[in-house]
Amino acid sequence: MSDSDLPFEPVAGVRLAAGAAGIRYQGRDDLVVLALDPGTTCAAVFTRNAFCAAPVTLARRHLQAVQPSYLLINSGNANAGTGKRGLEDAHASCQALADLAGCGAESVLPFSTGVIGEHLPVDRIASALPAVLQSLDADAWPRAARAIMTTDTRPKLRSVRFDLNGRTATVTGIAKGSGMICPNMATMLAFLATDAVVDPEVLQTCLRSAADRSFNAVSVDGDTSTNDACVLAATGALGNAPIEDPHGADYAALLAAVEAVCVDLATEIVRDGEGATKLVRIRVEEALDRDEARQVAYTIAHSPLVKTALFASDPNWGRILAAVGRAGVADLDIDRIRIHLGDVLIVEEGGRAASYTEEAGAAVMAGSEIDIRVSLGRGSVDAQILTCDFSYDYVRINAEYRS
Amino acid sequence: MSDSDLPFEPVAGVRLAAGAAGIRYQGRDDLVVLALDPGTTCAAVFTRNAFCAAPVTLARRHLQAVQPSYLLINSGNANAGTGKRGLEDAHASCQALADLAGCGAESVLPFSTGVIGEHLPVDRIASALPAVLQSLDADAWPRAARAIMTTDTRPKLRSVRFDLNGRTATVTGIAKGSGMICPNMATMLAFLATDAVVDPEVLQTCLRSAADRSFNAVSVDGDTSTNDACVLAATGALGNAPIEDPHGADYAALLAAVEAVCVDLATEIVRDGEGATKLVRIRVEEALDRDEARQVAYTIAHSPLVKTALFASDPNWGRILAAVGRAGVADLDIDRIRIHLGDVLIVEEGGRAASYTEEAGAAVMAGSEIDIRVSLGRGSVDAQILTCDFSYDYVRINAEYRS
Repeated sequence: MSDSDLPFEPVAGVRLAAGAAGIRYQGRDDLVVLALDPGTTCAAVFTRNAFCAAPVTLARRHLQAVQPSYLLINSGNANAGTGKRGLEDAHASCQALADLAGCGAESVLPFSTGVIGEHLPVDRIASALPAVLQSLDADAWPRAARAIMTTDTRPKLRSVRFDLNGRTATVTGIAKGSGMICPNMATMLAFLATDAVVDPEVLQTCLRSAADRSFNAVSVDGDTSTNDACVLAATGALGNAPIEDPHGADYAALLAAVEAVCVDLATEIVRDGEGATKLVRIRVEEALDRDEARQVAYTIAHSPLVKTALFASDPNWGRILAAVGRAGVADLDIDRIRIHLGDVLIVEEGGRAASYTEEAGAAVMAGSEIDIRVSLGRGSVDAQILTCDFSYDYVRINAEYRS
Repeated sequence: MSDSDLPFEPVAGVRLAAGAAGIRYQGRDDLVVLALDPGTTCAAVFTRNAFCAAPVTLARRHLQAVQPSYLLINSGNANAGTGKRGLEDAHASCQALADLAGCGAESVLPFSTGVIGEHLPVDRIASALPAVLQSLDADAWPRAARAIMTTDTRPKLRSVRFDLNGRTATVTGIAKGSGMICPNMATMLAFLATDAVVDPEVLQTCLRSAADRSFNAVSVDGDTSTNDACVLAATGALGNAPIEDPHGADYAALLAAVEAVCVDLATEIVRDGEGATKLVRIRVEEALDRDEARQVAYTIAHSPLVKTALFASDPNWGRILAAVGRAGVADLDIDRIRIHLGDVLIVEEGGRAASYTEEAGAAVMAGSEIDIRVSLGRGSVDAQILTCDFSYDYVRINAEYRS
């Protein structure tokens, strides 16, 4: 797929550039700079992994100090598990960009993805930066989407436009992620921008809300990354009346657009999950609360037996049932549980549904997108997550690739 | 391996027999009867999966009523997810044996393992039972160990002898299990017997304690089975002074023997884990409490990224570190954590240990048995679990086999 095949809308106030610094491989883009016009506000959510990477620690710190002017992203090296030197390296890469741009290092937010435990080659990043900075371009979103990839097989880029009192606003975002995907805050890496004017606190609320319904509701392999980060920049170039009321119509329009971009990017991450051949939507209904609904959904999503059955297109409802049973829900009444594969009722009253036929189940499982719906019969709360199957290629990719 | 290659000691008061009922496959043993002499006391632990199988429900019920005279075990069909009819089928199979033996159905404990969600072919079991009952033999442990296998590649049988005031007592056990292994009470199926005289409550304490340190400390794939069950029968044929004091020397000797058999059987289950090429011992030290130590150990053990790195013999300590970081331990101070691969210190102070070399790590990973030791630096509690790696064959077995 050439870049021209990736439709997108540029965001006024944002310019991007990518370049090849030779961080892990030679001759492929692995360095991205996003330049944000003065006045831009940034919101961000980060991994909850206690072993968070050095750039995550530094980006959090810089964000608290000033509004950023640049996002500096590298693939090929996660700068995670690198101790004190990792922080120094992350800072040095920010400083290198700041020196060239004539700003303070705190105005640069660093992001890294790739192999854990190797030191960041700061000198190579610094050497590549001058040429990258000279090529900043509002239309470079597709190239940036490619440059942040690691085991991803496809770039992930999405735009949505929405109306703000007669002005057309834009939300555009890129993301990367394929393995070590069970975000506990945001996905591996995602960068979104809008040209709308948005109050900083409202922007953060918007991003957190959208991430919860997208990046925080997907899982490829249950492994939460050390480097998860998601940024939403609002440049304000649109000149609309500032979105300040989280209960107003403008906010609702913004949230809908941001959430649409996040959900699409998160879905693309799962669809491109390492070795994935199926996109699986797991919906748990009639739970007492959201925690228990998500607990059941994630137990199904993380079951290797369910995932290999999905890979085999085998309507093995016994494995789904066993996963529900071990999810740790207190006082689960198995006689009230119903499980659907697509529209086919497969389990009721503790066993196979009387109406179920293997043919009907097999027909659903043959598809490339599969819905599993579990009704717990205990309450009225629902939750939904996206996951994928577990194939030979997952093993191959992770036995061969050093993440 | 022929049965003569499986060393064991018979247990006075226990006779066994196996036969082929054609439950799932033709011409292989899939039915086992253990006959327990009068006066035998049984202890048992069962799965905590809420969707427990019909035989588990019935075995629990029968155990509360009377001391069992027979254990009736079938492979090829788990009789799980079979609703009300599953219970009726389990009862009918007990009744068939009881009718032949001239006892009540409650004196028979049923156990099933195999495919979930298919109805038990009670008629075929009933037809096979007369011949099986006629071949009861104190030396049939190896044949029974084979007959209860499903995806297991090897029978699991172990004996330990111990001294009770000058009398030599015996503990012998068999187990099966290879996939859907993350016991939350006992493994898939394990049956142990001793000829010692043991008080029923003390026997239950002994089994629970031994299971906690063996079957409840292993994981192949994190999937807790619907059918886990472990029974320890004490026939009393040895005629020793009853073991009644859980603080006495006799109890200590019994517990040591039962635990040794359980640990060996549990280890064999992991070693024979579906597709497993490595046996991995994960020890978490210096935790605040046992729960948090086990939480960290299981998070590492269940990480598909760690498991595929183990398969690749890749000393990918970054994935271990990421798993520790996402294990959900509150206020984890990453600077205090040390991780060893075998005797090689790989992580300290939030990053790769200064003394670490890739060669030293690779040398440990090249072995078929690997020790991972994580010191949390928070307290003084340890926990250890056993697991295995994740290979192409795990996917193949579970994409092809209907469990």
